[in-house]
Amino acid sequence: MPTPPPIRHCSACGAPVSYRVPEGDSRPRAVCPACGHIQYENPRNIVGTIPAWQSSVLLCRRAIEPRLGLWTLPAGFMEIGETTQAGALRETREEAGAEVAIDGLYALINVLPAHQVYFFYRGRLVEPRWEAGEESLEVRLFSEQDVPWDAIAFRSVAQTLRRYFADLRTGRFELHAFDIE
Amino acid sequence: MPTPPPIRHCSACGAPVSYRVPEGDSRPRAVCPACGHIQYENPRNIVGTIPAWQSSVLLCRRAIEPRLGLWTLPAGFMEIGETTQAGALRETREEAGAEVAIDGLYALINVLPAHQVYFFYRGRLVEPRWEAGEESLEVRLFSEQDVPWDAIAFRSVAQTLRRYFADLRTGRFELHAFDIE
Repeated sequence: MPTPPPIRHCSACGAPVSYRVPEGDSRPRAVCPACGHIQYENPRNIVGTIPAWQSSVLLCRRAIEPRLGLWTLPAGFMEIGETTQAGALRETREEAGAEVAIDGLYALINVLPAHQVYFFYRGRLVEPRWEAGEESLEVRLFSEQDVPWDAIAFRSVAQTLRRYFADLRTGRFELHAFDIE
Repeated sequence: MPTPPPIRHCSACGAPVSYRVPEGDSRPRAVCPACGHIQYENPRNIVGTIPAWQSSVLLCRRAIEPRLGLWTLPAGFMEIGETTQAGALRETREEAGAEVAIDGLYALINVLPAHQVYFFYRGRLVEPRWEAGEESLEVRLFSEQDVPWDAIAFRSVAQTLRRYFADLRTGRFELHAFDIE
């Protein structure tokens, strides 16, 4: 989930932009010298689920870069027109071919190097069915002992899974809000 | 906090874009016919605080459009390179001239018509000091009885304040996750 490239041209008129601090602002922005349009860049949201079946979790092996071949929770960019929950369910369908019932927000993670905020919801598989989507090589249930910890695609996912399995032992699931720098 | 205008030109090369569904995708995107660059649009995060002093809350009267003259909680667009909490503290400083200590995430709101996700953190004023920033006409403490309910700038803010004052009576503050359609 790479960050987008820098803005070179104005999205309103197509003229080359320059990065400068607009009047009344405190940060450099992509400002168009031709039409004055300011193009803002902001962090993007990644929405996904922790699809649970009994004491196991469904993971997807990535069929796309970055981290092709490594394991992850089903998650992806939140789209315009959907809620964070709806996006998480959509990604779970698309990547894992699975239907889950959401039990609440479990992890909220600021991933500073990627300019992203992750939302992971706890989800119960409504039935033990799944299927690798186009972006997955395979999809499998893992108990805590079986998780391929050395082959997890993203730190956000590894840290979420560590916390999840720890909470599973106590049965208490609170929101985990943390940052990755 | 208006939504950005549609993309007309490619941010990589400046050529006019067309909206079409790229191969392997399911949604129309701004695709550049000249260089192939795809420019994605995603919801943006609004981060802010509920700055509390005893049983009152600090509100800001907006000096800017939209909703100029109406009251709001200090909040604004999350920036690249900051966490949601850091952004909420920054906005509280910029708009209300106030320092708060964050007590946790209080409200997480999908505002679908605006393509935005709101994060409101509970904050305690570290001292009873505030000052209207450039984007505020005035800043004042309000108890529940005094809140100008008919002059609140955004539904997200009104609904957050209603819930906050209700929780204040019980002393129990859990995360309120809800959607505005």
